[in-house]
Amino acid sequence: MSVAAEFEVANQQYAASFTKADLPMPPGRKVTVVTCMDARIDPAKILGLTEGDAHVIRNAGGRAADSIRSLIISQQLLGTREIVLIHHTDCGMLTFTDDLLRSKIRAELHHSADHFAFLPIQDLAKSVAEDVAFLKKSEFVLDVPITGYIYDVKSGAILKV
Amino acid sequence: MSVAAEFEVANQQYAASFTKADLPMPPGRKVTVVTCMDARIDPAKILGLTEGDAHVIRNAGGRAADSIRSLIISQQLLGTREIVLIHHTDCGMLTFTDDLLRSKIRAELHHSADHFAFLPIQDLAKSVAEDVAFLKKSEFVLDVPITGYIYDVKSGAILKV
Repeated sequence: MSVAAEFEVANQQYAASFTKADLPMPPGRKVTVVTCMDARIDPAKILGLTEGDAHVIRNAGGRAADSIRSLIISQQLLGTREIVLIHHTDCGMLTFTDDLLRSKIRAELHHSADHFAFLPIQDLAKSVAEDVAFLKKSEFVLDVPITGYIYDVKSGAILKV
Repeated sequence: MSVAAEFEVANQQYAASFTKADLPMPPGRKVTVVTCMDARIDPAKILGLTEGDAHVIRNAGGRAADSIRSLIISQQLLGTREIVLIHHTDCGMLTFTDDLLRSKIRAELHHSADHFAFLPIQDLAKSVAEDVAFLKKSEFVLDVPITGYIYDVKSGAILKV
């Protein structure tokens, strides 16, 4: 069975006991979370979110530069006024360089990915600080509170940077 | 209190009862979910995911074109071999056009966003089909099962496209 088929089965249970039919489109807590796609991260559980609370943007690393389109839409059209950015320990983005991944793609997919910036991370405290600074100075991001954290996949705790 | 401070309080509870310290980095179910940042969507609940199961990429609309960097990393470095893409009813992306949002940004932020493609959606079945097709023909995405769904925010159900 494909995972998609397993998802369909699991979803039948969720829909059968669904109680969130009347939530408005704009996030109730007016906040956007930016974090990594990592499988060990469940933003709702980690931050105490329930359906309707927050926009959640996720990409490889939780990188700010890859979130700008979504953040503009979140703020300009859906009224969010705070950003929380979370990177995490043992992140896959700590394990490679652009050159290494480009070489792998050239060898295995037989295409050049030399135009891709994969946004790997060398130091977590630095990547969080850099991404918060990037958002603070972006001319497309409103002047709102922006807080950066590192999530520890071994303890479940977030640590402010 | 900022929402970030509220998150810190909620996180103390999560960390206090944390039991997932030994999960490996690669997703256990070898699947990547691509979906919208919408506040009403909790992918873990909707699809029956637990920590460690799946990469979850989220952006405004759940658009494939904005997920390629993350998908390459997910497949090439962390071994995922299936993609599930989910757009949803009452999506904010159905409510605007590139021209409208560019005008709003020019008027309110006094900067040109004319180089941004905000990837709005006109028809959900079409956007899912287009995004699945986009991924299937991308030279950077492996030939793996890719399934597209529409999530109904009024019923909690996913419908295969």
